[in-house]
Amino acid sequence: MEQRLLLRIAVIGLGLIGGSLALGLRKYTNHTVVGFDCCPETMKEAVRSGAVTTVASEMKEAAAESDVVFLALAPGKIISAVRQIAPVLKAGAIVTDVASAKGTLAEEIGQLLPQGVSYIAGHPMAGSEKIGFAAAVSDMFLGRPYILMNDDPRQGAALETMVALVKELKAQPVFIDSTLHDPAVAAISHVPHIAAASLAILGGEGEQGQLQLQLAAGGFRDGTRVAGGNPAMWADICVTNRKAVVDSLDQFQQILNQVRHMVASADEEGLRSFLGRAKAARDRYQRQSSLMGGNE
Amino acid sequence: MEQRLLLRIAVIGLGLIGGSLALGLRKYTNHTVVGFDCCPETMKEAVRSGAVTTVASEMKEAAAESDVVFLALAPGKIISAVRQIAPVLKAGAIVTDVASAKGTLAEEIGQLLPQGVSYIAGHPMAGSEKIGFAAAVSDMFLGRPYILMNDDPRQGAALETMVALVKELKAQPVFIDSTLHDPAVAAISHVPHIAAASLAILGGEGEQGQLQLQLAAGGFRDGTRVAGGNPAMWADICVTNRKAVVDSLDQFQQILNQVRHMVASADEEGLRSFLGRAKAARDRYQRQSSLMGGNE
Repeated sequence: MEQRLLLRIAVIGLGLIGGSLALGLRKYTNHTVVGFDCCPETMKEAVRSGAVTTVASEMKEAAAESDVVFLALAPGKIISAVRQIAPVLKAGAIVTDVASAKGTLAEEIGQLLPQGVSYIAGHPMAGSEKIGFAAAVSDMFLGRPYILMNDDPRQGAALETMVALVKELKAQPVFIDSTLHDPAVAAISHVPHIAAASLAILGGEGEQGQLQLQLAAGGFRDGTRVAGGNPAMWADICVTNRKAVVDSLDQFQQILNQVRHMVASADEEGLRSFLGRAKAARDRYQRQSSLMGGNE
Repeated sequence: MEQRLLLRIAVIGLGLIGGSLALGLRKYTNHTVVGFDCCPETMKEAVRSGAVTTVASEMKEAAAESDVVFLALAPGKIISAVRQIAPVLKAGAIVTDVASAKGTLAEEIGQLLPQGVSYIAGHPMAGSEKIGFAAAVSDMFLGRPYILMNDDPRQGAALETMVALVKELKAQPVFIDSTLHDPAVAAISHVPHIAAASLAILGGEGEQGQLQLQLAAGGFRDGTRVAGGNPAMWADICVTNRKAVVDSLDQFQQILNQVRHMVASADEEGLRSFLGRAKAARDRYQRQSSLMGGNE
């Protein structure tokens, strides 16, 4: 990597993703990392573990003078944070987020930011069902796709800085148009989350729930893993991305209806063909994931 | 474990489950294990790896003189196998299977077996998305529930033998009434399988399928893992258990409808509560699984 300017980077929100960003930046770069979290205990922990160069006592203080501000907050908290930091941002600063659903964020943020400050929507495709700084790890983004939205040609230099940072974190920058982002993540992340939660309730509640959980094997374990995630955060994500989630849920239900029909009519041939298509899609994913150095 | 008679045990079908049964019996017991598989290559491999004491050239030959016959076959192949072996079974022999769906197996098998031969329906709750003898491992059943149906009080001694064998394999015998078995496995295994396959198609097909697979993270990986399983075997299982699978799919779709309504109406409070219930069920499973020494 070419010689680069050292940046002052604010990480606002030191949970699973923000904490991992801070740890990764400290491990792989020499940039100054200023942390802020609304929970003082979390900030102490971040300092103790060396995840930040320093912490700020206020969100504004972290953002002021920073070259890049990561808003590692739940989607529903981003606008209020932008309102707080907008007045203190310096010219040329970059604001970026890690929200799993973008909705109308870009438009709203665009109206709040002062002239000369860029917003680059970001979304690292990594995570865990665990939450909070305690679960953060410096290699969270290693080899993972890191989505950057590149709709606005005026973003030029800011986008270059973000690409360089993403590469320094050992993640793989992927550019997609923001109109494709929300439907894509609904299909590969939000609806799978809803399915996992629904399967946990199907299997674990009701008269036989206790017995069923006792019998459950690997298919249930993996199929419901993400249902152990943070309910408030995922409720926020689903609501923020509701249009794409509803569309994608409808498609999912249509697929399930087809399967139900095949099962009810004992159409074994049809089921074999359906499950063969599913296996082909899963196998494509697996091959791609191994190529990218995924840990499967 | 008390001193026990050494048994002659036939394992018919040396795939993932049959192969693992054979390997486990050879590792943990001194019983004679006679293997049979319709594929000669698989039998050679079983002999080479020491999974069997010997192999038989015909299914009947493996079953004759055996004290216990494991039919480790897909549900749809069991009745035809019972027809073949019934004439040669010795008095006092036990026939058992490992099918994931029982349907009307017990009645049909009851009519085919000669006087003095017992059928004990079994279902080890273990497996993998991989298939075939190559994926078999001796510790497949370690600490896992092994369901035995105990509806028929006349099974007495045969059930005791099966319990002892299951314990020798280091699995945990669990007794359930056969009427509860099929709905339970529909909820915790078959519908989760259908959901995984449907999610793989939702995410991996269509115009954005390629992009989406490139972006997919852990939620997609785990939520679709079992979709990599054998399409023909799972089509067979779903059809064999179709009544319970359709009922359970209907319940699953009702749950999804509730979520869809909450998402569409931006009912964040309702979603938090729903996802909280799901997390509670998942956490109960996780606790129970750790207590049982599950490898999570």
